[in-house]
Amino acid sequence: MLGRLWAKSWDPKGKHCYVTGGSSGLGLAVAKLLVLKGAHVSIVSRNAQRLESAMKELETVRTSPNQILKSYSYDLITATGAREALDAVCEPHQRRNPDAIFMLAGSCHPRFFIEETEETMKTQMDQTYWVQAWTALEASKRMVRDKSKGKIVFHSAYIGYITLVGYAAYGPGRMAIRALADTLRQEFLLYDIDIHIAFPGTMYTPGYDIENATKPKITLKIEETDPGVTGDQYAKGLLRGVQSGDFHISPDLLGNIFRASMRGVAPSSNFFVDSLWNFIGWVGLPIWRMTVDSTVKGHRKEHEEYLSNKGFYSSSNKSFSQ
Amino acid sequence: MLGRLWAKSWDPKGKHCYVTGGSSGLGLAVAKLLVLKGAHVSIVSRNAQRLESAMKELETVRTSPNQILKSYSYDLITATGAREALDAVCEPHQRRNPDAIFMLAGSCHPRFFIEETEETMKTQMDQTYWVQAWTALEASKRMVRDKSKGKIVFHSAYIGYITLVGYAAYGPGRMAIRALADTLRQEFLLYDIDIHIAFPGTMYTPGYDIENATKPKITLKIEETDPGVTGDQYAKGLLRGVQSGDFHISPDLLGNIFRASMRGVAPSSNFFVDSLWNFIGWVGLPIWRMTVDSTVKGHRKEHEEYLSNKGFYSSSNKSFSQ
Repeated sequence: MLGRLWAKSWDPKGKHCYVTGGSSGLGLAVAKLLVLKGAHVSIVSRNAQRLESAMKELETVRTSPNQILKSYSYDLITATGAREALDAVCEPHQRRNPDAIFMLAGSCHPRFFIEETEETMKTQMDQTYWVQAWTALEASKRMVRDKSKGKIVFHSAYIGYITLVGYAAYGPGRMAIRALADTLRQEFLLYDIDIHIAFPGTMYTPGYDIENATKPKITLKIEETDPGVTGDQYAKGLLRGVQSGDFHISPDLLGNIFRASMRGVAPSSNFFVDSLWNFIGWVGLPIWRMTVDSTVKGHRKEHEEYLSNKGFYSSSNKSFSQ
Repeated sequence: MLGRLWAKSWDPKGKHCYVTGGSSGLGLAVAKLLVLKGAHVSIVSRNAQRLESAMKELETVRTSPNQILKSYSYDLITATGAREALDAVCEPHQRRNPDAIFMLAGSCHPRFFIEETEETMKTQMDQTYWVQAWTALEASKRMVRDKSKGKIVFHSAYIGYITLVGYAAYGPGRMAIRALADTLRQEFLLYDIDIHIAFPGTMYTPGYDIENATKPKITLKIEETDPGVTGDQYAKGLLRGVQSGDFHISPDLLGNIFRASMRGVAPSSNFFVDSLWNFIGWVGLPIWRMTVDSTVKGHRKEHEEYLSNKGFYSSSNKSFSQ
């Protein structure tokens, strides 16, 4: 642990960084920072129009005419999409594997569990887990085969530590991706591949508006206490964590408390400071949970009216999974 | 918490208990205990032959001629399968929902991540997460609609707390199902549905042999320290946990240490005893992790030979996801 103080920080300059979900929100913010630091940056997302405007933004922060900045449109929720995107992204770099992969694509659609369907459940798993797992699988096979060094950066969320009413479809994927990162951190000690994973809380990005469109009122109310940050603010914390070699990256107060309370065997960057977070979580989180639980119980009547108005109790109710 | 001391323990007698994966291993062991305690028991699994021999075992422990003991063959990894199985299981009970659902179907197939394919990754998620999520979704919609009380019991594993080299496909589903249970514990305070989730370690069941068939040598070596229990032994601890209202059920030493170190906001059955587990985990798990990490690093050369012998480095290697 002390060795970290003298360890050289990772420098993105001249490296090829592949950013998924790089056309907006946190992905774009991280891509911009990487360009500013002199990296070659490839971004991938589904929306060609958004990619175009993102590229314009990236061009404005370019530090050298030699930086290779490229964008590609692929859907990464299938193994085929992930493979084709990687092929395309590596092409202008003599087909060498990226030096770092930042997997920041994904979306959040909260809902009451009993209002989920087979389709919404699967979509949410695609958008939280598979969208990262396939790229990680494809990339690591190539990196091991070619014996190339590199970094793979996953992203989860506060909800990957501490889930809440409304996140029955979203929380599982966020915790699943953490389990994948935890496994690979250890397994990839067999190779020269570093694993990182970030856990952002509320971020004011375009995704946040999409998320709030389906978010139950009770969930919104409970989340009022999270002050939130902008994508640019979070991107700085994320990149600082990657550069200094942190495994679980949680660059804020709540994130640190949640991380220490859900540490498992994830290595800590600072055992002594984390003892404090662990203690605060040990005492504070049960109190917070009891408050939230009683808020949920107090919502029973309103929830029953909500379900009744939506026709959930009627015999012709169509909400059963189709 | 103190209230628990006086709370009445849940009694399965005369209740309808639905056990998935009830034809062998932990599922069958739990089904037998429930029959012994006077419950009506329905078991579901895929294998009709195994169901038949399981039914014979259940009949031998029946305590009353009035107990309804039934078996059904369904594959529960799709929402349709889960729905059809629930329909069938409820039929002999005037179509009322089960009083308790024990979701114990599933299987484990460890492997090095770079040897996984699209198919093996998906199958493992089906066998750890969806096989429980679909039944939970279908059942809870019915229970909320009919305003029926009940219990839903999930199962995860040690690996849902503390993942290891070799579990890149399995660990995510095990942690995902924990996230679902955590969310529903809180969300279902809106209804009269109780959530439980069990975290077994090594269990000597037929599934254990299947698991070891693909398990990397390095994983087997690391797991040597887990003494393991029989399915019957674990079933007792599981049912005791459900009866006394525990949320996260981890009735053994390692399970308790792992649980306290990965508690998040999961309610604890005993805050004071868990303080001790948390402390032991805080000090002990980093040491254990460093030992395991160095075992993994020491395996690099052997692993490279293993990959080389399997032709992983050859240009015609077919291990890339198909």
